[in-house]
Amino acid sequence: MPNPTAAMLVIGDEILSGRTRDSNMHHLAGELTRRGITLVEVRVVSDSRDAIMTAVRELKDRADHVFTSGGIGPTHDDITADCIAAAFGVSIDVRDDARALMAAHYDRQGMEFNAARMRMARIPEGATLIENPVSVAPGFTLGNVHVMAGVPTVFQAMVASVLPKLTGGAPLQSQTLRIDRGEGDVAGPLGELAAEYPELSIGSYPFQRDGAYGTNIVIRGTDGPMVSAAMAKLAQLFPGTPA
Amino acid sequence: MPNPTAAMLVIGDEILSGRTRDSNMHHLAGELTRRGITLVEVRVVSDSRDAIMTAVRELKDRADHVFTSGGIGPTHDDITADCIAAAFGVSIDVRDDARALMAAHYDRQGMEFNAARMRMARIPEGATLIENPVSVAPGFTLGNVHVMAGVPTVFQAMVASVLPKLTGGAPLQSQTLRIDRGEGDVAGPLGELAAEYPELSIGSYPFQRDGAYGTNIVIRGTDGPMVSAAMAKLAQLFPGTPA
Repeated sequence: MPNPTAAMLVIGDEILSGRTRDSNMHHLAGELTRRGITLVEVRVVSDSRDAIMTAVRELKDRADHVFTSGGIGPTHDDITADCIAAAFGVSIDVRDDARALMAAHYDRQGMEFNAARMRMARIPEGATLIENPVSVAPGFTLGNVHVMAGVPTVFQAMVASVLPKLTGGAPLQSQTLRIDRGEGDVAGPLGELAAEYPELSIGSYPFQRDGAYGTNIVIRGTDGPMVSAAMAKLAQLFPGTPA
Repeated sequence: MPNPTAAMLVIGDEILSGRTRDSNMHHLAGELTRRGITLVEVRVVSDSRDAIMTAVRELKDRADHVFTSGGIGPTHDDITADCIAAAFGVSIDVRDDARALMAAHYDRQGMEFNAARMRMARIPEGATLIENPVSVAPGFTLGNVHVMAGVPTVFQAMVASVLPKLTGGAPLQSQTLRIDRGEGDVAGPLGELAAEYPELSIGSYPFQRDGAYGTNIVIRGTDGPMVSAAMAKLAQLFPGTPA
């Protein structure tokens, strides 16, 4: 059985303008791989209703799970929750359990639970909450879409809340061989090896160090013994390289 | 006149598996903003023919320019050039000028110009070459799609070759105000300011430092005096904050 698939939607003008460097994609990619879920596509879109809704509608049909990052704070440009509700055709309103969590949090902090913060208790009908141990305002799961904050510490905490509840697949096994030759010298034999093992993903990553060319070959697959067998053949093709 | 738009397509299993952290998106985003071109969407897809062709077809109709990153090396999984040719319905073959550039380069380096490296001289019919001052093998522009390498030093050099040839728009002006209050305290007045200036993009970025909450407000737009006027109002709303 093939592994479950995932797509990610990063929402935020600040990423597209180059002001902020996204780090949530790399974090989620690594966590999904460890869990045996294949990340098939990532999209980054602006804080625009049309852009968010188009992307959500397309991605939720394309992958088993969709993870969104960003746009669920208290300000005017935080429109993700409304867009998700609209994409699923359900209503959205302040929900009692989310409001209670947040009221208790702001009370402890001595901060005002004002109208802007109350927006973060708005949850689409039928969603389940995603715990936020960092700053309390919850994310939510609606259908196969997991809606999470963009602030990296909060995003990571929410990923840690959600992933254990999902059915994973066979974790990806990965082995790497460093070959001290240019990618163009490796490419021919490597292509033949890849054709011999269609179930494996064989990638080559060239580098240059102290003026010398080298290539890291990464062999990935869910069948560990097969990965090892392909790696042994590769090492035979390029003897004298580090194990 | 609105600024020209761009989309980016990052191609590579290694990004989606979490092995490699993409840095090309952040670089391109900053360069486009400086040039007055609005990046409206980024997609990351795997080294799969279907995924690349679907994304290229959709993005080239959605934005004035599409920039791709990755998948133009010498190995079996480098299929970007073929997919772009197929997406435009044109043929692809080794082209004399690209082959001559590369033959001279490998000759100088004392490296074999073998069949694998020759693949990098395959250019779709009707494309123009993008110079690669780092490792010579060229990128290309076909229609509104600019096809570039994934290795960051090469990608950056190719961006530097392409961008001066494009018509830019009014560069985005940006001003930032740090407010030493939580985002939820800022959100109400900020929403009113945003409604007053629909032409501007007003973003808020919360942070926590030494246990205290703060929010950076970024006001962006192509009309510099308007950005300054909105920023002056914001500073009045939150007096006593650093200028």
